[in-house]
Amino acid sequence: MARIDLNSDLGESFGAYTLGMDEEVIACMTSVNIACAAHAGDPLVMARTVRTAKRHGVAVGAHPGYPDLQGFGRRAMALSPEEVRAYVLYQMGALDAFVRAEGLTLAHVKAHGSLYNTAAVDIHIALAIGRAIKDFGSHVIYCGLAGSKMEEAAGELGLPFASEVFADRGYRPDGTLVPRGQPGAMIEDVDLAAARVVRMVQEGKVTASDGSDLALKAHTVCLHGDNAQAVDFARQIRRRLEAEGIDLAPMARCI
Amino acid sequence: MARIDLNSDLGESFGAYTLGMDEEVIACMTSVNIACAAHAGDPLVMARTVRTAKRHGVAVGAHPGYPDLQGFGRRAMALSPEEVRAYVLYQMGALDAFVRAEGLTLAHVKAHGSLYNTAAVDIHIALAIGRAIKDFGSHVIYCGLAGSKMEEAAGELGLPFASEVFADRGYRPDGTLVPRGQPGAMIEDVDLAAARVVRMVQEGKVTASDGSDLALKAHTVCLHGDNAQAVDFARQIRRRLEAEGIDLAPMARCI
Amino acid sequence: MARIDLNSDLGESFGAYTLGMDEEVIACMTSVNIACAAHAGDPLVMARTVRTAKRHGVAVGAHPGYPDLQGFGRRAMALSPEEVRAYVLYQMGALDAFVRAEGLTLAHVKAHGSLYNTAAVDIHIALAIGRAIKDFGSHVIYCGLAGSKMEEAAGELGLPFASEVFADRGYRPDGTLVPRGQPGAMIEDVDLAAARVVRMVQEGKVTASDGSDLALKAHTVCLHGDNAQAVDFARQIRRRLEAEGIDLAPMARCI
Amino acid sequence: MARIDLNSDLGESFGAYTLGMDEEVIACMTSVNIACAAHAGDPLVMARTVRTAKRHGVAVGAHPGYPDLQGFGRRAMALSPEEVRAYVLYQMGALDAFVRAEGLTLAHVKAHGSLYNTAAVDIHIALAIGRAIKDFGSHVIYCGLAGSKMEEAAGELGLPFASEVFADRGYRPDGTLVPRGQPGAMIEDVDLAAARVVRMVQEGKVTASDGSDLALKAHTVCLHGDNAQAVDFARQIRRRLEAEGIDLAPMARCI
Repeated sequence: MARIDLNSDLGESFGAYTLGMDEEVIACMTSVNIACAAHAGDPLVMARTVRTAKRHGVAVGAHPGYPDLQGFGRRAMALSPEEVRAYVLYQMGALDAFVRAEGLTLAHVKAHGSLYNTAAVDIHIALAIGRAIKDFGSHVIYCGLAGSKMEEAAGELGLPFASEVFADRGYRPDGTLVPRGQPGAMIEDVDLAAARVVRMVQEGKVTASDGSDLALKAHTVCLHGDNAQAVDFARQIRRRLEAEGIDLAPMARCI
Repeated sequence: MARIDLNSDLGESFGAYTLGMDEEVIACMTSVNIACAAHAGDPLVMARTVRTAKRHGVAVGAHPGYPDLQGFGRRAMALSPEEVRAYVLYQMGALDAFVRAEGLTLAHVKAHGSLYNTAAVDIHIALAIGRAIKDFGSHVIYCGLAGSKMEEAAGELGLPFASEVFADRGYRPDGTLVPRGQPGAMIEDVDLAAARVVRMVQEGKVTASDGSDLALKAHTVCLHGDNAQAVDFARQIRRRLEAEGIDLAPMARCI
Repeated sequence: MARIDLNSDLGESFGAYTLGMDEEVIACMTSVNIACAAHAGDPLVMARTVRTAKRHGVAVGAHPGYPDLQGFGRRAMALSPEEVRAYVLYQMGALDAFVRAEGLTLAHVKAHGSLYNTAAVDIHIALAIGRAIKDFGSHVIYCGLAGSKMEEAAGELGLPFASEVFADRGYRPDGTLVPRGQPGAMIEDVDLAAARVVRMVQEGKVTASDGSDLALKAHTVCLHGDNAQAVDFARQIRRRLEAEGIDLAPMARCI
Repeated sequence: MARIDLNSDLGESFGAYTLGMDEEVIACMTSVNIACAAHAGDPLVMARTVRTAKRHGVAVGAHPGYPDLQGFGRRAMALSPEEVRAYVLYQMGALDAFVRAEGLTLAHVKAHGSLYNTAAVDIHIALAIGRAIKDFGSHVIYCGLAGSKMEEAAGELGLPFASEVFADRGYRPDGTLVPRGQPGAMIEDVDLAAARVVRMVQEGKVTASDGSDLALKAHTVCLHGDNAQAVDFARQIRRRLEAEGIDLAPMARCI
């Protein structure tokens, strides 16, 4: 039976600042990636978000990012692989403390923002993330862009890998995402988005920006909870997948 | 046989800034408390310091502090117990990631600076630290000032407690330290300091500032590695304890 | 003719985080206090907020706070007077750079959150803020709680002082605010709030929590722009003051 | 008469962390660049360093860097020109508050580390720094690498520019520095270094790495105070320049 995980980035509030509709979007998810107080989040937010995830019975993963709160981890930083390994390991451990405090187990790691984008194309950074995961515990799933250097790194290190696809993004024939700002970057029509995800899951294929078929492993779909519209989009995607008889389950059961 | 642990605060360098003679002082220790990138330290320093501790075969503990790098965790901050629990849990987990990456186990937690001083006299803060430890794993030892609210909190929560004494500080008859700046605050004579520690270990007593005998449990002695003089002091204390036939061992074997 | 200033705290957004309805509330104000990237705000937000203030023709002041973004400057920190002077001077200068870039002049300084509360009762901290202001330029107005240690400090240093009152807070007979959480702390009825402000301006009196009359200098009223309700409250207060024929003008013309 | 300025980066200590031999090296300088609490420094250090500069009668400039204390501003960050302008303006203003508190005037701005290196080759970043300077006050000197994009930006904006040369670095025929780690990157022989600086000042030329003559404007020489050896090097360079009859004076008198 076709099966896929739905994941979303949560716990990105900080101190007096609230960001994201965590409570609303988590109800649609089977996995969540929780910020670790580097690019977003703080220890109180982490504690609260892990508890919310427990209440909803979703799998919990770490969402490490660059140590750049002001830039929300979206600005490229020239970090060495040694720095990336140490920063990811630090953030994984910090989140894991809240996870074990709730009697749960850290399921996966998915990098955030600019770290994710860099690791998708730079094998040294992708390996540095992988080494942090392996050093922490080799049962933890490395989640990253389908067909990217992160998949290659996980393979090299013998780590389980969850191949991530995007419901709302266009793909180029080489498997990379159409950059934001270019035509075809965003899939805003929810029917089209849902149809694309269904095909990714059932056939392992998606129509690329040039009209060709692109082969793509799809273990988990990334959805957003930034605002009411995003949450509505996520809800509809989930409903369509269920209507197609696709099983929704955490990454560990999809890879 | 009389036995005691020797502990020191390590890993307080940060980025381009170096602090402390870690390599020199660790050779005298049986336990180290490693900063967790809140009041001091950063992920690279933590990785390096845990490796150093492993090489020297000493027990590794977390040294959590206030999130105030500029004040080095020495400035009082009005944090709620919930904040203290979350900050300590966060820092314990972050350090533990490096500890498990090296195949070691987190042995103890000792608060830093103003957090330590507050927890010594405020049962709510002492309990908040204790709850973080308990939520992380109840095998971890709570290390704190002998006879303080931290000892009371550990008792209330059923946590193992390591009672800390100071070789270089004077005590008031009520068991609190003579505040820095007051006469008798610092014991600078190494012969006197060593004699006091030997008596604490062998008789469970120390001469207080008013000349009376103060009963004191001594599981671990705090020593410093800030400069060459401090390291020399630590070396001499260790030598005297060994000369007296006192066994030196990590906290877990002293409590 | 009776005259008063209306001030509000602005520019408290940070990076990806938005806080406050700056555009809406500023239209009601004659002065704004802009966060300086310590407890809130960042350089981009500061640049933008100063431009907004210029467009609305309101007086611009600095709103310095503790260096505690995670606590939004609301957690007490034990800073020395020397630290407070340096932090306030730093933040004043940082904001002033954006102010002069727009061809404006820094009009006043009003401390934020816990720093404000501490300075209201601690003459050493109140003087430290005053020294920063004086060292920066003695034309800058020191704005603080009516009748507090800040007023005393400004007097001692020969600085112009703007006495701040609150439309939405109850007063105790000694001139301090009824602490939040206690009965009578908040004045939520806008008619009552407006009537109280009118009386403060016209008679220099307000009814205290015990029913007695409290004498109070009122140069500026603090209003909030945190949410739509607060903005509506601010609008109504402004309307009532105008209806009473009270002149609204920046602090410099009210003291 | 041949004339040149000697500049050094100061005030890079932070909180409990000490860096650099500021007191020793400042005695050799005619200008200092003071860190502004982004990549290094804090408000107390800034206050103290400006006072030291005043005591020694040297010109004071701002030394703005990336907001990356952990990386000491040496890690490349992908900032937009708008961000760079705002960060530089912020830091200039913050330092200026301490400068005016001492009755001095901010003389120049010299970017730090990775921001300097980026601005040397990227005209958009070089212009962003220049715009911050111009918006702050067009009397302030833009100090940057001789012949770089910073010089071009200053020209375009009509700002005074001080062309910086290095006594201890090799130059490539195109005027860029030989990258650290490559042969000829560092000039460690003080006689050779001094002779090169003398020729730069007197003839406006230096021997490049391929043996050819490179034309170079030299208004100011950068020297270091990181350790005793660096201070000794600085002292000797100064002595040789004086022995050659070269006048030492702040940038404003050299451009």
